[in-house]
Amino acid sequence: MTKEENRQNLRGSGQGAPLYMALLHDPVYNRRGETVTAAVTNLDIHDLARAAMTFGIRRFYVVTPVEEQRALVHRIVGHWMDGYGGRYNPGRRKAFETITITSSLEEAGKDVERETGSRPLTVATGAALEPPLLTFAELGTLVRTGERPCLILFGTAWGLAKEAVSGADRRLEPISGVGEYNHLSVRSAAAIVLDRIRKNL
Amino acid sequence: MTKEENRQNLRGSGQGAPLYMALLHDPVYNRRGETVTAAVTNLDIHDLARAAMTFGIRRFYVVTPVEEQRALVHRIVGHWMDGYGGRYNPGRRKAFETITITSSLEEAGKDVERETGSRPLTVATGAALEPPLLTFAELGTLVRTGERPCLILFGTAWGLAKEAVSGADRRLEPISGVGEYNHLSVRSAAAIVLDRIRKNL
Repeated sequence: MTKEENRQNLRGSGQGAPLYMALLHDPVYNRRGETVTAAVTNLDIHDLARAAMTFGIRRFYVVTPVEEQRALVHRIVGHWMDGYGGRYNPGRRKAFETITITSSLEEAGKDVERETGSRPLTVATGAALEPPLLTFAELGTLVRTGERPCLILFGTAWGLAKEAVSGADRRLEPISGVGEYNHLSVRSAAAIVLDRIRKNL
Repeated sequence: MTKEENRQNLRGSGQGAPLYMALLHDPVYNRRGETVTAAVTNLDIHDLARAAMTFGIRRFYVVTPVEEQRALVHRIVGHWMDGYGGRYNPGRRKAFETITITSSLEEAGKDVERETGSRPLTVATGAALEPPLLTFAELGTLVRTGERPCLILFGTAWGLAKEAVSGADRRLEPISGVGEYNHLSVRSAAAIVLDRIRKNL
């Protein structure tokens, strides 16, 4: 598809701008609030790919600067795409088709731009982001009416580090529960965020 | 707390009836649609306990008829409650306090009855349940106005088998995405269900 066709698609579709998401393994916080590079967790990839496919996310970027970790993700994805896993579980294969592995968020953003012709609006997520915060309703409006694709950013470990958050265009309101406690896994949080975004479209 | 005090609590609280949830490992379907007993997945317990705590679920039952599997869950929970894990991650300990391990759904139901004085209304969840289905809005009304506690049932593997579904009082509407594809993990699905229930209270 050419860039122009993609732009037409974006404008023409009733669904508004396409949605992308990225799971960042760097820079993220560890338990002590130190900025680290986290290791890839196999189930994060499975769960987020399945949620991405279910909620119509166009592409799910697994982002890590560590070459060996990217090679590991390639092997996992390859297993479920081509190997025994692909025959064993065709549904998983379909979800894994949404995955692109990149070494940086910048590389993911360029990939979105290549596909859509527009630089994506990046939206950071987290349990303790500081105002001003984008509400789910506002994000829904942006997606519905916007021409720019949206790239939702999730952080592994104890969440996106400040540098990753401050580099994003917007910060999404946190998922609030019923009390003070708010320690969802990134698997749970991403599922809820995608469900809420779709509800607001 | 006595039964009578608990009943008063139920009636008196603005939040309506208390919510419980159970993760069943039997009877569930495997990939080929056969009814099996599934093995416990460590991350299911972590993610569901954290979601339960976040969304104010009063108790999270991990249910398996296999004694060795219950012993395994006891060890996992013990590690995060008492051992090194409890000191390492107090937030996880708090979430794990919601867990009760039982050998059957009946035992879980009796535990709820002991705690609240009422037999719980059991609500089955799944991606392909047959009508009549309870909507999230209707479930919200039941919880808000009901005197009976609600016990939400989740199935591991390929979901709750027919016998488990037909034994439940109600069936919850599935989480619909944007297309045909609907293969969320139980970790993602449970998080979304709890979020949607809370939204409807």
